[in-house]
Amino acid sequence: MWYNDTNVHYGAVLYMSGKAQWIWHNGDLEIMQLNRCLTSRYEREIFIPPFWCTDDFCKNVKFIKEFSLGAPERMFVTANGRFNVLLENTDLPAANNYIRGFDGYLDLKPGRYRMTVSVYNEAALPALFVEGRTVLSDASFQSTGNDFRICEVGCGGYFDRNYPPAAFRFNCERVDFTVTERTESALVLDCGRELVGKIKFGGAPGAGDIRLFYGESLPEAKDGENCELLDVIRLPERAETEIAKAFRYVQIVFPDGMTPVEPEIYSEFVPQPRTGYFRSSDSRLERIFETSLRTLALNTREFFIDGIKRDRWVWSGDAYQSYLMNYYSFFDLETTRRTITALAGKPPVKTYMNHIMEYSFYWIIGLYDYYMYTGDERFIRRVFGTALEIADFTENTRKNAGGLIEGKNGDWVFVDWANLDNRGEVAVEQIIYYKALETIVKLCRVLGIDGERYEKRRAELSVLLIEKLWDGERGVFYYSLRDGKPDKAIKKHPHIFALVYDILDGEKRAAVIKNVLLDPSAEKITTPYMRFYELDALCLAGMHDLVLDEIRDYWGVMLDEDASGFWETCDASQKGAEKYAMYGRKYGKSLCHAWGASPLYLLGRHFVGLEPAEAGYKSFRLTPVLSDLEFFEARLPVLEGDITVRMDGESLRVLSDGTDGVIRLDKKRYIPAVPADYEENGYLCFRVRGGEESYIALKLRGKTVRAPKNDECRS
Amino acid sequence: MWYNDTNVHYGAVLYMSGKAQWIWHNGDLEIMQLNRCLTSRYEREIFIPPFWCTDDFCKNVKFIKEFSLGAPERMFVTANGRFNVLLENTDLPAANNYIRGFDGYLDLKPGRYRMTVSVYNEAALPALFVEGRTVLSDASFQSTGNDFRICEVGCGGYFDRNYPPAAFRFNCERVDFTVTERTESALVLDCGRELVGKIKFGGAPGAGDIRLFYGESLPEAKDGENCELLDVIRLPERAETEIAKAFRYVQIVFPDGMTPVEPEIYSEFVPQPRTGYFRSSDSRLERIFETSLRTLALNTREFFIDGIKRDRWVWSGDAYQSYLMNYYSFFDLETTRRTITALAGKPPVKTYMNHIMEYSFYWIIGLYDYYMYTGDERFIRRVFGTALEIADFTENTRKNAGGLIEGKNGDWVFVDWANLDNRGEVAVEQIIYYKALETIVKLCRVLGIDGERYEKRRAELSVLLIEKLWDGERGVFYYSLRDGKPDKAIKKHPHIFALVYDILDGEKRAAVIKNVLLDPSAEKITTPYMRFYELDALCLAGMHDLVLDEIRDYWGVMLDEDASGFWETCDASQKGAEKYAMYGRKYGKSLCHAWGASPLYLLGRHFVGLEPAEAGYKSFRLTPVLSDLEFFEARLPVLEGDITVRMDGESLRVLSDGTDGVIRLDKKRYIPAVPADYEENGYLCFRVRGGEESYIALKLRGKTVRAPKNDECRS
Repeated sequence: MWYNDTNVHYGAVLYMSGKAQWIWHNGDLEIMQLNRCLTSRYEREIFIPPFWCTDDFCKNVKFIKEFSLGAPERMFVTANGRFNVLLENTDLPAANNYIRGFDGYLDLKPGRYRMTVSVYNEAALPALFVEGRTVLSDASFQSTGNDFRICEVGCGGYFDRNYPPAAFRFNCERVDFTVTERTESALVLDCGRELVGKIKFGGAPGAGDIRLFYGESLPEAKDGENCELLDVIRLPERAETEIAKAFRYVQIVFPDGMTPVEPEIYSEFVPQPRTGYFRSSDSRLERIFETSLRTLALNTREFFIDGIKRDRWVWSGDAYQSYLMNYYSFFDLETTRRTITALAGKPPVKTYMNHIMEYSFYWIIGLYDYYMYTGDERFIRRVFGTALEIADFTENTRKNAGGLIEGKNGDWVFVDWANLDNRGEVAVEQIIYYKALETIVKLCRVLGIDGERYEKRRAELSVLLIEKLWDGERGVFYYSLRDGKPDKAIKKHPHIFALVYDILDGEKRAAVIKNVLLDPSAEKITTPYMRFYELDALCLAGMHDLVLDEIRDYWGVMLDEDASGFWETCDASQKGAEKYAMYGRKYGKSLCHAWGASPLYLLGRHFVGLEPAEAGYKSFRLTPVLSDLEFFEARLPVLEGDITVRMDGESLRVLSDGTDGVIRLDKKRYIPAVPADYEENGYLCFRVRGGEESYIALKLRGKTVRAPKNDECRS
Repeated sequence: MWYNDTNVHYGAVLYMSGKAQWIWHNGDLEIMQLNRCLTSRYEREIFIPPFWCTDDFCKNVKFIKEFSLGAPERMFVTANGRFNVLLENTDLPAANNYIRGFDGYLDLKPGRYRMTVSVYNEAALPALFVEGRTVLSDASFQSTGNDFRICEVGCGGYFDRNYPPAAFRFNCERVDFTVTERTESALVLDCGRELVGKIKFGGAPGAGDIRLFYGESLPEAKDGENCELLDVIRLPERAETEIAKAFRYVQIVFPDGMTPVEPEIYSEFVPQPRTGYFRSSDSRLERIFETSLRTLALNTREFFIDGIKRDRWVWSGDAYQSYLMNYYSFFDLETTRRTITALAGKPPVKTYMNHIMEYSFYWIIGLYDYYMYTGDERFIRRVFGTALEIADFTENTRKNAGGLIEGKNGDWVFVDWANLDNRGEVAVEQIIYYKALETIVKLCRVLGIDGERYEKRRAELSVLLIEKLWDGERGVFYYSLRDGKPDKAIKKHPHIFALVYDILDGEKRAAVIKNVLLDPSAEKITTPYMRFYELDALCLAGMHDLVLDEIRDYWGVMLDEDASGFWETCDASQKGAEKYAMYGRKYGKSLCHAWGASPLYLLGRHFVGLEPAEAGYKSFRLTPVLSDLEFFEARLPVLEGDITVRMDGESLRVLSDGTDGVIRLDKKRYIPAVPADYEENGYLCFRVRGGEESYIALKLRGKTVRAPKNDECRS
């Protein structure tokens, strides 16, 4: 075996049937969990709820199922909440009755039925569980919030009749630690790497307040006055912490007279049965991939969150990057769907997601990715109404007389943490909105919905973008228009998105790469958040070798700091305590931030070079780039099994478990020893069959070019 | 003293200040209580939640207050929910900080501050309580649901820092009962009159299930198989019932081996410190007024509900009538505001109130009444946005190409429980909508809001109503248009509303009275709900004598049945068990239904003849009609004190505690012994000063005419 085989394989189950499971009103479990997630943020003892408006689950739900029984059947019915059961025998239209004296079981004669269960719960998610021989609560049920809209129920993952979804708990495992310091009244512990965990004192060591000071770094844990997270365990009332917190180190201060004892530490986690890997001759790159995996895994909780210490919130823009990283690491579709669903909220659309304008547009764009990687039309259909509503909301409330969109009414036009003035008609917003409209048009086609009106808007915006925001003389985008006047500052941001979202013709594209992306005098991107798009754009422009060096440098610096997760930002020039500070607080910086994990996507998508060629990964396209590595070997989970790739200077091996595909070798980089099946746009293409191993002997065409000439930008 | 003086007088406090009180996000307490109220309906053991979509309170609220301190001040801050306190010293713009180590008290130096308290509560209403020397939580605070809308907070009535509004409980009093039947294992109790109460077994008489069968009537309580309401008390776990139920009688069945013991019964009630009265030579009429008072009082709970046995729901159409009855009985403005606020729900408007089209229109119309009776512009301003939204929603979604409105998307076009076909463009809906638009225009003027667009719609509809729905040949309204064709059935309904809402010129008005209201062959109105409007219309047409007989007959029949409250419907021809049945159930009919109390309004508004002449009862207009009575004496609470009136065949006495007004005597009915101050439209008018008693000696002009001639219809 030339590849590592330690992972479990299993297919992603989208709609399990044949088994009774808890069901809920579509989207409502996700909304309830989102609210719980958004309210688990603390700064020291200060509770910080979100500062935008979130939706809520529906307390009053009707679940509906029509079925036919050929034989008598007994079914068990229970609900999370007060409920009633209304049974209509559709063979006997008059027999329309509430079940009286209901004791948990229905005994039904053969016939055709329509069952309606009304469930009300003031405090927690209304949910239903029905288990008969043939009638089982699952995705075949429908529900309504009594608003005359009936939809498919939500379901998945809750099969225990005694464990309704409102009672959700994370998996936990006990973790080891070392005691790094011990005094008469305190301990400092090191868990070896960061985690989100709870601390418990097994045997009660007395009475009084045990104070806990958490740290992502050792200095933070030891600085009780300034650490970001803390807890108090009040013995004997409570022997463990209530909300799991993020830490690697913890300082435990015992009350007077209590002898320090070692606690138990439990780490909360989401099981990920499928995990990709990336091995290479460059062990630094291997560690970058591994640390990225760990960073994304820790930030994968109920949802893809931004950072485990802070904010622990679901930001649609951050989540959109996590979706993409996830397609090249865990292929965790449950969390993806859960995040997309929770962010959608409840109709009607009243504001943007997280009240950030472009965050709703990213959400739309992410739907097409989800469709391509999974082919799951059924899920897209569930949430697509929100995409259309966002576009209509934008058109009706944010489009000005000139046809461009502009933030207002408390919108946050974010773009990036950078020196940006986002008033007026910001080019980046138009570009991302344009891509969202294009996505809607494509998905309308997939779902068989008339997308005419969105296509019209897309076409209009396509023209306006260039007419109003393109500076033909300089071959760059204005940053924005304010009161009709262009802001001529040249920022990388609009140009990065223009490349990533492929909105330029060849000439303008080349100009943007030359005039902005490769201009060493252009203001540098500083957040990993925006570097995700910048490096993506550079790869799309064929600058793989440059990107590989950037990854080694930027993420490598954090490894040198013994990072067990990647950071919110990193500036190699900051030394000592300074590197932990942010937002004016000594340890304000998050040291395990989801957007730090972007090497997963960059390496998987652009070096292993994997992507779906058809929706639902019916076939894949693999365009590997070895760059300056001696070899790499990667296994990436896809919808059907995994795809494993090993490349070195002499050969390429590919094993796809179940998916057919095409290997594409760049003629400018590689000379294969065997003839290609066909050639396309400068690539030699080889067909691959699912389940078969492909081996292509090859040679490198000369040495990797570190500083490509400009005419190579057109990949 | 010529008048009864047993009642407490006090002014209606609209906005209490100078005292710390619990505050909440505007409307949210009412919405929380509404949801609790709507989910307290049971049919036997079956829980029946509402079948339309209701809104929910906001879980995440920011409370905001700016203040200046001239001296140091300590303030106590607590909240219902997890919270943080952010304090900005506006003299020092940089000092913007969460209060760390908060222990319940803030100690502030002199200066200018902006305080923001964020409160989150997943399960119950977020609320805030602040008590300093000068800074007190009250209506001067603002709040936001983090949707960038900031409004005045909700407040009122919750002054105990340990008792947040989410913990609301009704007042209770123990009531006496008699044991009417006693067997070895059962008791039947009679409380003498109906109540909403809980039953409790003081000393635990053993273990087992005690079963309770409630009855509004004795037959219902004794018919355990068919009574509408029941309960089980499982001893020893629980010794009392959980939800108060409506009953006068209760059958208590004890388990085997348990000796029957008498329980304690507690009645839930809303204290009403101000209660009007009506005395008369006709003791039947007195009893009708008293029983109406009791009926309305029992149906006044968190809100004005429809019926205490069933549905216990807040229906906007029913509540609208209760508001009017209440202005002539309890003048309970708290419950009025609470009901109006709860029904408004949360923006945006997504459907009609109770999903019934005209119920939202009644809600709008009721705002103008509230304004006239109270002058409370501040409250109107709080809820007026909903009125505008309803009109816009109707215009955008329910108006068809012909300019008329039509129910759709699951709307219930109710009108009345009667033989009606409410498809298409129903005349009644147009008329009520017209009145709602007229109300909006008037209130826009009051509030200084531009109402141009609503005035335009009102004027358009005014023309269309006659053009499309008036049958000029017959001098009647069509019932509706369906697919452009008139439904020519002559129903009283549109004609009643045309009179009550005064939309006809003199000629058409006379035609409607003659051709429909007084046509003995016209299909009779059968519900007290619609009789409210019918009798109101007849009084407006001057048919007081006819109306008095109708009141005596219709409501008198129920007194003959020993009613302690008035019924949902009453048909004198039904005898025995038949009279309790409705909706296909043996005891389905509600025997204490708010709309049964309409004599309060009819007698107060049209016989005592009291109404506000200027907004806020700044002055009143009193147009008393003795009809065939020897005398009546009534005291009715108004905004400032009460107005007491006694009339007989020889004199009229009026005492207004605080309000100036005008007495108007119909020249066709009365000959005063003193000269009038002035004459107007056939009325002799006498000015009255608040605090002074007026006495007018008079004679009746001949005997009361029982069957007025048609030319008298133009009052």
